[in-house]
Amino acid sequence: MNEKIEALREKFKNLDMQGMIITNPVSIRYLTNIDAEGVLLLTRRENVYITDGRYMEAVNRALTIEDEIIVYDFRELTREDYENFFTFCENVGFEEAHLTYAKYKEYMHKYKINNFEETEGLIEKMRIVKKDDEIDCIKKACLITDKCFEHLKEFIKVGMTEKEIAFEIEKFFLQNGADGLAFETIVASGVNSSMPHAVPTDKKIEEGDPITIDMGCRCNGYCSDMTRTVFAKQVPQYMKPVYDLVLKTQLKVLEDMKEGANLKLISKGVDSDFKLNGASMVHSLGHGVGLDIHEYPFINSKSDFILKENMVITDEPGIYIPGRFGVRIEDTVLITKYASQNLTLSEKSYVIVG
Amino acid sequence: MNEKIEALREKFKNLDMQGMIITNPVSIRYLTNIDAEGVLLLTRRENVYITDGRYMEAVNRALTIEDEIIVYDFRELTREDYENFFTFCENVGFEEAHLTYAKYKEYMHKYKINNFEETEGLIEKMRIVKKDDEIDCIKKACLITDKCFEHLKEFIKVGMTEKEIAFEIEKFFLQNGADGLAFETIVASGVNSSMPHAVPTDKKIEEGDPITIDMGCRCNGYCSDMTRTVFAKQVPQYMKPVYDLVLKTQLKVLEDMKEGANLKLISKGVDSDFKLNGASMVHSLGHGVGLDIHEYPFINSKSDFILKENMVITDEPGIYIPGRFGVRIEDTVLITKYASQNLTLSEKSYVIVG
Repeated sequence: MNEKIEALREKFKNLDMQGMIITNPVSIRYLTNIDAEGVLLLTRRENVYITDGRYMEAVNRALTIEDEIIVYDFRELTREDYENFFTFCENVGFEEAHLTYAKYKEYMHKYKINNFEETEGLIEKMRIVKKDDEIDCIKKACLITDKCFEHLKEFIKVGMTEKEIAFEIEKFFLQNGADGLAFETIVASGVNSSMPHAVPTDKKIEEGDPITIDMGCRCNGYCSDMTRTVFAKQVPQYMKPVYDLVLKTQLKVLEDMKEGANLKLISKGVDSDFKLNGASMVHSLGHGVGLDIHEYPFINSKSDFILKENMVITDEPGIYIPGRFGVRIEDTVLITKYASQNLTLSEKSYVIVG
Repeated sequence: MNEKIEALREKFKNLDMQGMIITNPVSIRYLTNIDAEGVLLLTRRENVYITDGRYMEAVNRALTIEDEIIVYDFRELTREDYENFFTFCENVGFEEAHLTYAKYKEYMHKYKINNFEETEGLIEKMRIVKKDDEIDCIKKACLITDKCFEHLKEFIKVGMTEKEIAFEIEKFFLQNGADGLAFETIVASGVNSSMPHAVPTDKKIEEGDPITIDMGCRCNGYCSDMTRTVFAKQVPQYMKPVYDLVLKTQLKVLEDMKEGANLKLISKGVDSDFKLNGASMVHSLGHGVGLDIHEYPFINSKSDFILKENMVITDEPGIYIPGRFGVRIEDTVLITKYASQNLTLSEKSYVIVG
């Protein structure tokens, strides 16, 4: 059996679970490398993936003999087959944050489940510490993101629209080996940069605009996430103190992130630094990155979270002055034993474009 | 109050519901025109939309006084506020096919709900017959799709990859007034066309390839959906009978679709026509199109469904010969009293590209 499924099954014992129905496609991809529509069953006796004919070929390509997963086309299965999967299972787990209420009820009946148990992020927590092959994929996505930034430094010109730049980013990713976007690219210029979650508009880049570019791509499903705030033609003097504070903070956090560090304390530190300077944190300092662009851990000043080797998280402080402008600088960071390893390496001093 | 919310509230009476929590963003967009993250509550006394600060501006822009919707930032609400929304409500509806089991439990507690009732596609069924403004959006999306096809006839060349063509389609949509893609574009050439749900690959277009292009865009959230199968340089003789049969079928269905027609019978007719010719239907004949690319009604030979004026559905027969090639031809169709009005008007005779 593959090591991820084995590790998950190991956890069943403490939870007094004898089986699990896995429906979140991200969990399934993590456990099996399958990228299709279907349901993964871990029963007492076997691992089963139920899909439909369309995906059969792709599924069989994704699996190896070591996975020990039996694949069925749902059309081959009878009512009895469904009812037999979990016989002698007292408690069967499910992913309550993914399964809809309608499917929950349907599955209870279809699989004749005695006791359907919530599993509270069981698989999501396994995903926090990355395996070597996962890190390789994230590194590849980060490398393409850095290359894209190099390209943008030449590409962006005064007069272009935010949408045109966002589109160029997507094109670059696809033409340079990425599977696609990790999330909808943010290109926010001038006053739009004051909104942390702006979407690209038809606004044209003007001289003196700060341009916040938040972008990431996927390689083999794994995401990169990087933000840079660049300037069109010149950096207005009044923006410099804000940029400098964000950058100083970002670099300080990068230094603090390492095995054993508590994300709550790091986040609190930024919070009070910002307050001392008359600014405030309007979004969290960062989040885990992997098969999901936002995944465990979610960094905040309220809950303790101790970093461990091979976690991958973002470091993304930002300051936003409503109605005026904003600055955010973000890297994707790999935690190692003694330090953090920055996986996105694009320039962070003032970058002038245009 | 806006007419859609009023019509929904009217339905509450027969269902003995006194309120509803609406969580599917598509339902919310349909009822309110809001395109954001949040929850819509229809309580005894009022309509409430709960969102977070990031979306406040966009939400207020989407609403008019006639909507009679009170907007809250969730940070302003206390535990008591949540508990008071549904006081004196015996039964509160929810969207069981959208709400996760985890949120279902959370909302039960948070809103102190006595009886949380499944509503079984209540809003989805309201969406089947389109309003004039909805039809206008779909027509606009279809027009851009037709223009894109015109462009592709010149653009596609032997030697290009499927991915390059798919990318050009997205670019064209964005540059010609669409919000974005209605779904991931399918460009399937040569043997890839034998898979109804192929994804674009790095395969290059070769002379004699059939190329199935299934594409659609969105305007103000509403989708278009069109498929054409074109040929690179020449139409191989052995493909012609298959193409001709698919086209004949598609045109026949187009003629049959009108107010009062039963989709089950239309679908059965195609099924038996195909069988007589040694082919079979591997996917359904079509589906509703609106804010979702696939929505009610889902056309099949098993369930009766009577067409009404102002429904918008697809007509998309296809024949797929495993390991060899496939042909699909699809239009988005508006049902009128006496006929169907084809909204995608691109050429359907043999189209040669390359």
